[in-house]
Amino acid sequence: MNFDLTPELLDLQQRTRDFIARDVIPFERDPRCTPHGPTEDLRAELIARAKAAGLLSSHMPLELGGLGLNHRAKAIVFEESGYSPLGPVAMNIAAPDEGNMHLMEVVATPEHKARWLVPLAAGKIRSCFCMTEPDPGAGSDPNMLMTTATRDGDSYLINGRKWFTTGAEGAAFAIIMARHEGGELDGQATMFLADMNQPGVTLERTMDALDTCFPGGHGVVRFDNLRVPATDVLGEPGQGFRYAQVRLSPARLTHCMRWLGEARRAHDVATAYAAKRKAFGKTLGEHEGVGFMLADNEMDLHVTRLAIWHCAWTLDQDKLGRHASSVAKVISSEACWRVVDRSVQILGGQGVTNDTVVARIFADMRAFRIYDGPSEVHRWSIANNILRRAKPAH
Amino acid sequence: MNFDLTPELLDLQQRTRDFIARDVIPFERDPRCTPHGPTEDLRAELIARAKAAGLLSSHMPLELGGLGLNHRAKAIVFEESGYSPLGPVAMNIAAPDEGNMHLMEVVATPEHKARWLVPLAAGKIRSCFCMTEPDPGAGSDPNMLMTTATRDGDSYLINGRKWFTTGAEGAAFAIIMARHEGGELDGQATMFLADMNQPGVTLERTMDALDTCFPGGHGVVRFDNLRVPATDVLGEPGQGFRYAQVRLSPARLTHCMRWLGEARRAHDVATAYAAKRKAFGKTLGEHEGVGFMLADNEMDLHVTRLAIWHCAWTLDQDKLGRHASSVAKVISSEACWRVVDRSVQILGGQGVTNDTVVARIFADMRAFRIYDGPSEVHRWSIANNILRRAKPAH
Amino acid sequence: MNFDLTPELLDLQQRTRDFIARDVIPFERDPRCTPHGPTEDLRAELIARAKAAGLLSSHMPLELGGLGLNHRAKAIVFEESGYSPLGPVAMNIAAPDEGNMHLMEVVATPEHKARWLVPLAAGKIRSCFCMTEPDPGAGSDPNMLMTTATRDGDSYLINGRKWFTTGAEGAAFAIIMARHEGGELDGQATMFLADMNQPGVTLERTMDALDTCFPGGHGVVRFDNLRVPATDVLGEPGQGFRYAQVRLSPARLTHCMRWLGEARRAHDVATAYAAKRKAFGKTLGEHEGVGFMLADNEMDLHVTRLAIWHCAWTLDQDKLGRHASSVAKVISSEACWRVVDRSVQILGGQGVTNDTVVARIFADMRAFRIYDGPSEVHRWSIANNILRRAKPAH
Amino acid sequence: MNFDLTPELLDLQQRTRDFIARDVIPFERDPRCTPHGPTEDLRAELIARAKAAGLLSSHMPLELGGLGLNHRAKAIVFEESGYSPLGPVAMNIAAPDEGNMHLMEVVATPEHKARWLVPLAAGKIRSCFCMTEPDPGAGSDPNMLMTTATRDGDSYLINGRKWFTTGAEGAAFAIIMARHEGGELDGQATMFLADMNQPGVTLERTMDALDTCFPGGHGVVRFDNLRVPATDVLGEPGQGFRYAQVRLSPARLTHCMRWLGEARRAHDVATAYAAKRKAFGKTLGEHEGVGFMLADNEMDLHVTRLAIWHCAWTLDQDKLGRHASSVAKVISSEACWRVVDRSVQILGGQGVTNDTVVARIFADMRAFRIYDGPSEVHRWSIANNILRRAKPAH
Repeated sequence: MNFDLTPELLDLQQRTRDFIARDVIPFERDPRCTPHGPTEDLRAELIARAKAAGLLSSHMPLELGGLGLNHRAKAIVFEESGYSPLGPVAMNIAAPDEGNMHLMEVVATPEHKARWLVPLAAGKIRSCFCMTEPDPGAGSDPNMLMTTATRDGDSYLINGRKWFTTGAEGAAFAIIMARHEGGELDGQATMFLADMNQPGVTLERTMDALDTCFPGGHGVVRFDNLRVPATDVLGEPGQGFRYAQVRLSPARLTHCMRWLGEARRAHDVATAYAAKRKAFGKTLGEHEGVGFMLADNEMDLHVTRLAIWHCAWTLDQDKLGRHASSVAKVISSEACWRVVDRSVQILGGQGVTNDTVVARIFADMRAFRIYDGPSEVHRWSIANNILRRAKPAH
Repeated sequence: MNFDLTPELLDLQQRTRDFIARDVIPFERDPRCTPHGPTEDLRAELIARAKAAGLLSSHMPLELGGLGLNHRAKAIVFEESGYSPLGPVAMNIAAPDEGNMHLMEVVATPEHKARWLVPLAAGKIRSCFCMTEPDPGAGSDPNMLMTTATRDGDSYLINGRKWFTTGAEGAAFAIIMARHEGGELDGQATMFLADMNQPGVTLERTMDALDTCFPGGHGVVRFDNLRVPATDVLGEPGQGFRYAQVRLSPARLTHCMRWLGEARRAHDVATAYAAKRKAFGKTLGEHEGVGFMLADNEMDLHVTRLAIWHCAWTLDQDKLGRHASSVAKVISSEACWRVVDRSVQILGGQGVTNDTVVARIFADMRAFRIYDGPSEVHRWSIANNILRRAKPAH
Repeated sequence: MNFDLTPELLDLQQRTRDFIARDVIPFERDPRCTPHGPTEDLRAELIARAKAAGLLSSHMPLELGGLGLNHRAKAIVFEESGYSPLGPVAMNIAAPDEGNMHLMEVVATPEHKARWLVPLAAGKIRSCFCMTEPDPGAGSDPNMLMTTATRDGDSYLINGRKWFTTGAEGAAFAIIMARHEGGELDGQATMFLADMNQPGVTLERTMDALDTCFPGGHGVVRFDNLRVPATDVLGEPGQGFRYAQVRLSPARLTHCMRWLGEARRAHDVATAYAAKRKAFGKTLGEHEGVGFMLADNEMDLHVTRLAIWHCAWTLDQDKLGRHASSVAKVISSEACWRVVDRSVQILGGQGVTNDTVVARIFADMRAFRIYDGPSEVHRWSIANNILRRAKPAH
Repeated sequence: MNFDLTPELLDLQQRTRDFIARDVIPFERDPRCTPHGPTEDLRAELIARAKAAGLLSSHMPLELGGLGLNHRAKAIVFEESGYSPLGPVAMNIAAPDEGNMHLMEVVATPEHKARWLVPLAAGKIRSCFCMTEPDPGAGSDPNMLMTTATRDGDSYLINGRKWFTTGAEGAAFAIIMARHEGGELDGQATMFLADMNQPGVTLERTMDALDTCFPGGHGVVRFDNLRVPATDVLGEPGQGFRYAQVRLSPARLTHCMRWLGEARRAHDVATAYAAKRKAFGKTLGEHEGVGFMLADNEMDLHVTRLAIWHCAWTLDQDKLGRHASSVAKVISSEACWRVVDRSVQILGGQGVTNDTVVARIFADMRAFRIYDGPSEVHRWSIANNILRRAKPAH
């Protein structure tokens, strides 16, 4: 057991840190940052800078233009990317593209990769992941999936509605989760690949959400007899839930990594303020009430990082990591939330305005305790795991 | 000691509740709700409705068109008003106007009242309160006041910058806090009344804040040799800090009342959702993890209401209520915050979108722990009070 | 609505406060305070002092030697009694006797009252309440009741085991909850009155518990064919669960009152220490980290008191108060716990020793979150109540 | 970075686990466990077993009979030892002996080692560390040290009072911290070695503390002209505060390790109970309210372990580890406390009795947030460290 980072990784960490400071943070006040995320134009400009810096799609293998990072290396690099809300987009490692790339790399055919993964990894197009459905469909409980796929000759016809489809507006293609109706797979779930700009796909609206870091925001998408060739099933038919797990554990963990970076940024802004702003005869930081908040921030960031690193190591051991990623997700999302909330408080009135980046991080961060499984679902899953392992104690 | 409400007050409570449901909530999705609060046009429409319902400026005496409510009656009515983020504006009891009216009623001359208070109480104009200053000026620590007032013949010249001046954009007049420079009041503070549309007053910008419930948002105002006739001193010169206390304790408490209404609304929306949305085979509410959050909400709303009532009773005894209002403010702002945060969590993804009013309440509510004194300043003040009273124990 | 106390009640409060300071606190270091509570000898001495002070069994009617206090008056007096862990015993208003007296006053026959209630109210004997059973019997879930009552001629034969029977050791009589086996009441529950010193009653052991304030500690009691005449059914047969509610809501609330007094004591000891002990150049209390704890204590004591008063008022309106007493119990037990935990922390090392009374209060207090229904059971019951009331919100 | 344990360490972990289960836990109900810790007789019996198992004084080098473990290996072994409150005593790695051995190994002369360290490492004698003083002496603030050392020929005369001197009763020798009075070291601090059974040393009393795991409890020791030869200065004169740091960071961390084991034990007992005890139609663990507590326990144990491992790694890099050990101590003591508190709650009534070991762990654990520096002192020290490092953020 040790916590050493290799010189190569330390170098990559520093390069990422420099890139974010020099190439990304200056764009945070760019008017192309909209309530539904950075525009496509801004995204393209940031992607170009990351490519120039050799930091694009770093989780992808070398042949796809990435750096072939394992989970532990991602923990280092993705945290740095998150130091700006625009960082993950710039480096093409934001959700949902990052998770979609990972899943496709594992299960897609060479043809699918050539058609969709190659331009996605190059940052030329965006994608979305159509899974979550409005009430009474699948939210936290995947078994409530209502979108259907019906075999029709060599194709499937897909019908249903999805929401919280991050990045739907502007996405070139989608991975769609649907449940077979009829046939020998009746009731089982399959993932489909489909271009977005075709008949049968309607973007009903983009939701107005608190978070503003995702390009394209979160869409409500309707499928009306969307025809998907059977050859565009992603992986094997009937394996939808299994693939969701393949995608989910790492995707959940990369969320933690990026958001840790955001939380650290908020803490740094608050610390700088506390170190200079005076009240009642001394700097804010010299007031114990504020100093204790800084200390709690440091400890929360520390345990988040350790929990992420440990989970990344677990995933690097070729384990599925379902329990580990639930643990890491709850710890990270709640600790980072506390950090950002305290940072707002330290900044006082400014903390709730856009005079610093912290209010934006605050609004982004609230969703973290919900997206990719709310804390409650993970706690319940962790509890079940504990009870299964339980043996009589002394 | 009892918790009975008179039949008259119960009737007024019900009428307010009905008014909010019927006349105010339907406007929550009106496009005239902007990031800097409802427009003047929307405000006027709401004011007209409140007037028709006999619910305008209820804290003002009858001769000013109000209902002459004492603090305890306000606790009932203002909570109901807050059930919609637009309610306090509609009823002309929102900050800062409500507190300004209260202060002026206590210390203004008949001339000042005729000129400014009468139209303010009628909802025809708005006002602002210029107190908080940017670093290194007065924030939580009023002694850092940097805006100056210099005697010049029969007038004062005021110079300085204020921010977080709620409602500055569109306000007809301001109460300005400034420190005397020179003269026999050198170093002491005075409040001045001044129209906003005159030379020497510049609205530099309106800040982009998380909260969206205040008409005019929060402005940054600059005074450059603003000339104020000595007759427009509010009350006595040199009494600025004392008047600030007169205004602050009740104003702080009415904040608590209104925000309690907002928090109750969030809880009700979350409860309704938990009662019908299903996951994992039962309604959300039937899951203990969610049910416990609802129970905690109920308890937090309960103690907030009790703390407000107790403080209102204290103020009705003709006490200054500084300690009591600090206690009520910390309890209320933190408990209401927990309620709203849990409500967001129960709503899941929808909780962080504008699909319900809860995300908007969430964004409004965060400022409550900071405005009118952050929790930390009140805790410190409460602690000092405790230590002053401390006697050896057994 | 108001928070005034009558002059009579203020006087009674002061007299109780003086009594505790003068007649009770000096006995806290008496060697007759054992791990299983004060000895019978010490108890008798304290009872005599309370009687002399006119403060015995104050919740009982005048004809039984009490002061006929309603719930709100009890809130004032019982809080004062709790200022010493020995206070409630001294004043004969400790659990379980206090609740047993209340129940018997409501449902017992004149004969039962003459035989058991009169000497109990006079503090001459003690009683116990045999309800909770070891696994797999009735704990938090009363429906799991396993102790049986079988009709045998003019008597019942009672069989079963009870634990956490507070005060069993030394009790003159017991109220026993049992489930009918056979007969027309088969499956229903009844309460029985029975002397403890008779065949069929075995005190297996007294449990070693953290708390040390209850005379007789907590016993494990076994009934083997205990014969109880049918005339010694308490109230009506088959009404056991209903009577349990009659006893429980007020008994739960008087727990809150007494424990509030204990918590206030801990806070006062910690405050006195913080006001004089120096570290790092100033008193502990002048350190914000400690000052904030004192402020939080004050707020927790305040909301506890308000919640108790509100619930007492509800019970005085002749309401059953089940929901209200659950709310008050969770708020009180958790807030008082935080107060005592912080008080320990402020006292540093001394806080975990018997050099002050706080460590003893700490050990007593932990059980409060469990006895009379753990927080979790109350939260669940509160949640169900909320969901039953739920109507669609806007 | 990785979290692998070597096969050797895994084996040692398993052997320790087995030893605790087989040789130590059966003694937990031994009557020789007193309120002031296990008796000397019980201690000797346990030591003999650990020696037979090859697990004695494992942090000492091979030549002193130990296993020469580094900090990371200690993290593994000490956690296992803590699984029983008697474990660290059995393995001779309990405070204060463990820390005293460590300090002496680093700074003592060969003569001192032969005389005191050799028998101490063999578990033949015990020691104590006389540092903390009663008010107005040194508690959390070491600068308030009042015990004096005055040069008198070839000796020093030591005068003063110490308390919370863990293990004083029965200790063969003490390390005493005193401040020079007069001479060229006037005002500086030095550590002295001295046998306890000599004139000038008085054990005034042993304090009644909540914790019961330390042999000899916590003593109040008075020195009246205790004569210590100058040759019995530990290390260099005037280096007392520096040595305190040498001792403190690792000693603080080994506290964390042992207490993590205790917390894990409490969690295991609670889990086993939750897995079998039924209420309201299902096992406790199947109730989300309880399941969530188990999940929170698991996460708290996880972050504690990670924080300890990280700090151990830091210390293994030959760093002083002051900041790291403060961070680890606050995280560990507060997380372990939450674990134990939840475990009590899950166990219900039994949790507050000695029917399981959890109530004892609960009482032990409370002190952890105070001993070796209360959380508040560490938070303040962490905050200062943060502020020193602070640079302007973007």
